[in-house]
Amino acid sequence: MQKGQMVYEGKAKRVYECERDDAYIVEFKDDATAFNGQKKGSITKKGVYNNAISTVFFDWLKQEGIVTHYIDTLSEREMLVKRVRIIPVEVVTRNVAAGTLASRLGLIEGEKLKQTVVEFYLKNDELGDPLINHSHAVALELATREELDHLERTALMINDILYERLHTKGVLLVDFKLEFGVTAEGEIVLADEISPDTCRFWDEQTNEKLDKDRFRRDLGRVEEAYQEILHRIQNK
Amino acid sequence: MQKGQMVYEGKAKRVYECERDDAYIVEFKDDATAFNGQKKGSITKKGVYNNAISTVFFDWLKQEGIVTHYIDTLSEREMLVKRVRIIPVEVVTRNVAAGTLASRLGLIEGEKLKQTVVEFYLKNDELGDPLINHSHAVALELATREELDHLERTALMINDILYERLHTKGVLLVDFKLEFGVTAEGEIVLADEISPDTCRFWDEQTNEKLDKDRFRRDLGRVEEAYQEILHRIQNK
Ligand SMILES: Nc1ncnc2c1ncn2[C@@H]1O[C@H](COP(=O)(O)OP(=O)(O)O)[C@@H](O)[C@H]1O
Ligand SMILES: Nc1ncnc2c1ncn2[C@@H]1O[C@H](COP(=O)(O)OP(=O)(O)O)[C@@H](O)[C@H]1O
Ligand SMILES: [Mg+2]
Ligand SMILES: [Mg+2]
Repeated sequence: MQKGQMVYEGKAKRVYECERDDAYIVEFKDDATAFNGQKKGSITKKGVYNNAISTVFFDWLKQEGIVTHYIDTLSEREMLVKRVRIIPVEVVTRNVAAGTLASRLGLIEGEKLKQTVVEFYLKNDELGDPLINHSHAVALELATREELDHLERTALMINDILYERLHTKGVLLVDFKLEFGVTAEGEIVLADEISPDTCRFWDEQTNEKLDKDRFRRDLGRVEEAYQEILHRIQNK
Repeated sequence: MQKGQMVYEGKAKRVYECERDDAYIVEFKDDATAFNGQKKGSITKKGVYNNAISTVFFDWLKQEGIVTHYIDTLSEREMLVKRVRIIPVEVVTRNVAAGTLASRLGLIEGEKLKQTVVEFYLKNDELGDPLINHSHAVALELATREELDHLERTALMINDILYERLHTKGVLLVDFKLEFGVTAEGEIVLADEISPDTCRFWDEQTNEKLDKDRFRRDLGRVEEAYQEILHRIQNK
């Protein structure tokens, strides 16, 4: 399948039309940004790792009956996905306190949460992706209350699946961000990517961070962390 | 009824024990603070106005079957209330975009919201009262999911009552903050105060602000605004 016109270039991926008018080709870049684009850099082979890692996760989810935009992996950096209208709500699921959750609520990074937290953020770089709740999302006409409930329930199901499977690989799933979209047929499907760019992964033994926090916090060995996650999840 | 030991001095009120061990005497002060205590001042007779205004609002709510902590108004500045354990969640209800909602979500101040917004904020001055959602509140063990649903539903009922009655007085209820508490018998009741300190009131004709925003934004005629609200709602 050949790439056609580029329809969008984001911070981590490029999206292209292709001969199927119900599909896009997503190309994973090595560009890395953090803190809403204020920090910019590049992580060698990140695009290759994230394409492969997302492929594995979308496959796991499919096995458990979760509908995603994933169709096929075309090359090292290219994935074929269903075209969707992205719902501009980032759905974050958290098992352990880290990052902004810890600082905003006065929790200690690494503290297991007494209840899985699901958060909605408005996907809007200009506004800095503010935290929103159900009533904000409805007032902004981003989604209906039923759709939001569906997103929340699906995020929790995905959490159960990924948490358990990663646990068998010695990886703690601390938190992760999902994006959902609506297909031409009106079905809500999981879209975007699931990778060390969008998740926090900690080694269960050492608590070592195996995700983009190594880039955000200048911890070094960034590429190696992405590679390690890929090896762990590919390892049968 | 005589005031006993002071149990708490807050930013706007003092809370005292009294001869009834199921009640407190709340004394309304003239002290005014804004922006999480960074701006400090005083508004002449504010305590007197807020005591009288809260009395009227608690009375309106009682007439409509809403359970509140209000027992009696003892003097110009003193109210007798049921003792409760305050649930540390500030419940904000919004009909029109203003303040932090407008700036966070990129809305224009004065825009009517397409859906009434109900927000929960963690009542914690050190953390700057961060916005939270249901799952945060449950994870922090502030309340159960059922209690949070009850708070949200009650806030919407209170909004309906106050919005309509204020409308007959030519006042637009833009938004307001409520606090709830649990009595010794385990009943959740509306507590704290309802006043120009905790609500945004706009004159329906002129859009003139008749609330604490006059203090926050140095608009002048602050005392007059509190007095005006009292006159409007007392006027039969
Ligand atoms: N299946 C899809 N159909 C259409 N758009 C998608 C799909 N999956 C992801 N997207 C969008 O494509 C963009 C991917 O590029 P990315 O670099 O992550 O962008 P951003 O900087 O906006 O996060 C995102 O805006 C994402 O929402
Ligand atoms: N019925 C009640 N029983 C116990 N505490 C109450 C009751 N009503 C209000 N309070 C609490 O009393 C304090 C009132 O003082 P205030 O000056 O508003 O304090 P703050 O600066 O904490 O907002 C608040 O902390 C409020 O939560
Ligand atoms: Mg992205
Ligand atoms: Mg107060």
